[in-house]
Amino acid sequence: MTTSSQAIILFAHGARDPEWALPFQAIKRQLQAARPDAQVGLAFLELMTPSLEAAVAQSAAQGAKRIVLVPLFLAQGGHMKQDLPRLVREISDRHPQLEFQVMSAIGDAPEMLQAITDWILRGAAA
Amino acid sequence: MTTSSQAIILFAHGARDPEWALPFQAIKRQLQAARPDAQVGLAFLELMTPSLEAAVAQSAAQGAKRIVLVPLFLAQGGHMKQDLPRLVREISDRHPQLEFQVMSAIGDAPEMLQAITDWILRGAAA
Repeated sequence: MTTSSQAIILFAHGARDPEWALPFQAIKRQLQAARPDAQVGLAFLELMTPSLEAAVAQSAAQGAKRIVLVPLFLAQGGHMKQDLPRLVREISDRHPQLEFQVMSAIGDAPEMLQAITDWILRGAAA
Repeated sequence: MTTSSQAIILFAHGARDPEWALPFQAIKRQLQAARPDAQVGLAFLELMTPSLEAAVAQSAAQGAKRIVLVPLFLAQGGHMKQDLPRLVREISDRHPQLEFQVMSAIGDAPEMLQAITDWILRGAAA
């Protein structure tokens, strides 16, 4: 595998308000700036496009071999426990040559919980 | 104002799966450990209890004068732009003696966007 064959696809819930996507687009830009060798994508579960399937298909068409899926969810509920595994199964069936890595929810990472806690402590002290 | 009259109330969306609340409960514990002088609460918009109104009423009954509301949402959509301001208006009407500070969405804080980006970079490189 060459590094240029890696895709990082952010996967967010989606919302009716277009402005809702702004933080996720910012994360995408920051990732792309830090990893110019990787394909960085942003996909949504509902209400916004592209879908996860469309984003993966585009990455595959552009030569991705390994996909890091990053669920931008704070916690694990039905979307991460049922919807995402089902989507990954369906997409894997259609792209058997791709290797998938699925990261945890943000709130399952102790360092992210600490970062959120520290941010609240700074804000609450102000 | 004494510091003991401050309440920090986390406000999360809520979900059907009880495990969904675990990261928010962890943040609450970390905050309480770091700020033993403050009342730290956790409230939900829907599907879980207590409601924001119930959490604020409890804090007020226990002597809180100033409430820091922390919306644990990644981005601003209808929940933060419409639901939360409406709830805060209704709650303020019922508790006119309370002072409210509402923090931004997590994804509106540049340092949190950077923390999320850095966490993804570490995970995607593994």
